Amino acid sequence: MINLTQTTGVHCFVTGAAGFIGSNLVDRLLTLGHRVTGYDNFSTGNEAFLENALQHPCFRLVRGDLLEPDALSAAMAGCDVVLHLAANADVRFGTGHPRRDLEQNTIATWNVLDAMRQRGIGKIAFSSTGSVYGEAQVIPTPEDCPFPVQTSLYGASKVAAEGLIAAYCEGFGFEGFIFRFVSILGERYTHGHVFDFYRQLLQHPDHLSVLGNGSQRKSYLYVQDCVDAVLTAMAAGDGKLTIVNLGTPEYCQVNDSIGWICERLGVAPELRYSGGDRGWVGDNPFIFLDCARMRSMGWAPRRTIRESILRTVDYLAANRWLLDSRR
Amino acid sequence: MINLTQTTGVHCFVTGAAGFIGSNLVDRLLTLGHRVTGYDNFSTGNEAFLENALQHPCFRLVRGDLLEPDALSAAMAGCDVVLHLAANADVRFGTGHPRRDLEQNTIATWNVLDAMRQRGIGKIAFSSTGSVYGEAQVIPTPEDCPFPVQTSLYGASKVAAEGLIAAYCEGFGFEGFIFRFVSILGERYTHGHVFDFYRQLLQHPDHLSVLGNGSQRKSYLYVQDCVDAVLTAMAAGDGKLTIVNLGTPEYCQVNDSIGWICERLGVAPELRYSGGDRGWVGDNPFIFLDCARMRSMGWAPRRTIRESILRTVDYLAANRWLLDSRR
Repeated sequence: MINLTQTTGVHCFVTGAAGFIGSNLVDRLLTLGHRVTGYDNFSTGNEAFLENALQHPCFRLVRGDLLEPDALSAAMAGCDVVLHLAANADVRFGTGHPRRDLEQNTIATWNVLDAMRQRGIGKIAFSSTGSVYGEAQVIPTPEDCPFPVQTSLYGASKVAAEGLIAAYCEGFGFEGFIFRFVSILGERYTHGHVFDFYRQLLQHPDHLSVLGNGSQRKSYLYVQDCVDAVLTAMAAGDGKLTIVNLGTPEYCQVNDSIGWICERLGVAPELRYSGGDRGWVGDNPFIFLDCARMRSMGWAPRRTIRESILRTVDYLAANRWLLDSRR
Repeated sequence: MINLTQTTGVHCFVTGAAGFIGSNLVDRLLTLGHRVTGYDNFSTGNEAFLENALQHPCFRLVRGDLLEPDALSAAMAGCDVVLHLAANADVRFGTGHPRRDLEQNTIATWNVLDAMRQRGIGKIAFSSTGSVYGEAQVIPTPEDCPFPVQTSLYGASKVAAEGLIAAYCEGFGFEGFIFRFVSILGERYTHGHVFDFYRQLLQHPDHLSVLGNGSQRKSYLYVQDCVDAVLTAMAAGDGKLTIVNLGTPEYCQVNDSIGWICERLGVAPELRYSGGDRGWVGDNPFIFLDCARMRSMGWAPRRTIRESILRTVDYLAANRWLLDSRR
């Protein structure tokens, strides 16, 4: 265990520090009184997300790639714990770039682990995903559901990274924390269907293209609830490996989220569905995780899915520059 | 499905063709009337195992490495199905060479899959391992046991490869066959505890060093039974992904196998145990797979574990040159 809420001065190494979840975590760690080295290659990260952190005397930013082991190992010197958030998070385009998930998620995670081993750093928290369950046979899906069959290169690359972390825990005495996230929403969110819908409705409020038939059921979690959970689980670790699902005790249909977004924006677009029960090859039509294990540690999310979506829309409306900075 | 026992002339691409299981598979495929391109980098493969195959007009050997994608793709041109046996099979020394399993098992499998995609080859059989179950909570362990936690870099690299294959099946319409083997024994076996014990007893028949306390419970399967099962499962495929355990309906203790080996060799060594309930970090003290799924396809092993071990000892005794050719 490593209690980051009740101690100060821990030197945290955060990969993907300029990303959506990473930058929120960096800000929280600095607020809690820790030193943070942020590592990012800015392939999708955004320096503006580190605006506050960069003013903070306990923050250091290293521009580097996880596929450059020497730079990574050098940057990690002197750190106490690694929070590994960097990833290709684009589950949808896996088949268009079949090597990207392997490199950025699996090989990159191995590089992180082995740099830690070389540097004598033995604690790692990792952002995995509910996608490792493939199309789960048990819903809500607990962490020990039946051995899953992967349905996406993204999920495959993350389950591979989980396996590497577990093997380093067993073989090298690491302590690991694996978080299987649902989709995360909130401030600095720049990626996913709420972003796509918002951008579309800004460009053409009269119609909205929707992948699938809109009845896909998905789960979401607010980013600050996610950060809370990460810190809570890390403080409760048993010294070996902790694997927890992170989500809300609810799910919604894509059509529900469309309704909330349109309500907030005051628009009533014609909905143009691409059809079928899923948005793309490897899309999972029903994601809902059993989060009893995480809740048993004393954590509960503070925001509902609806609130998370509305806050995300408000954030995007107040930060329209983001729409231009992303493809 | 692809029925290799009732058709002929299928062009099979076998990776690890000069290895223990690979070379036995090559011989069988040639006997059944297929064309075989064998691919091997001879890092652990042995050209002598291909002595018969190299005389056969339907066999072609390509010396190449799976980490050289262009050579791999070129060699694969015109093949109909890939049987991917090449691997670092050394579960025991994973922590001494932590990148080897990642490269030779995970990245190599990705290279095989993507070469197949480029070449329009859509069928793959893969030698996975019961090690993907880590220390299974359910024994005998079925294919859909609870989501396992990896305990070795070897198991982690193989479960990662399984995930890649499953994702290629979903994303690119491949048909995949994943075989989770117990340890395989028989002709051309050159690796594992029977080999180690035999070599030790040849050098010093009066004593034998044993890792752990000798009560580890393990499962074994005879290599020809393994080849039978691979061909049977491939003929029964549903066009998508078939995952099957391969083993015998029995297990034995390491002490049992020591007894059989000593009986065969007529020696009575002093047993020197290193102690503890496992042989090394990541060793699994009890491996026993539920093979009901494979048996439901009409397959059953013909040899018991005892028979497999005795045949292996006889083979090693008749091929002592192998003891010198291996570290």
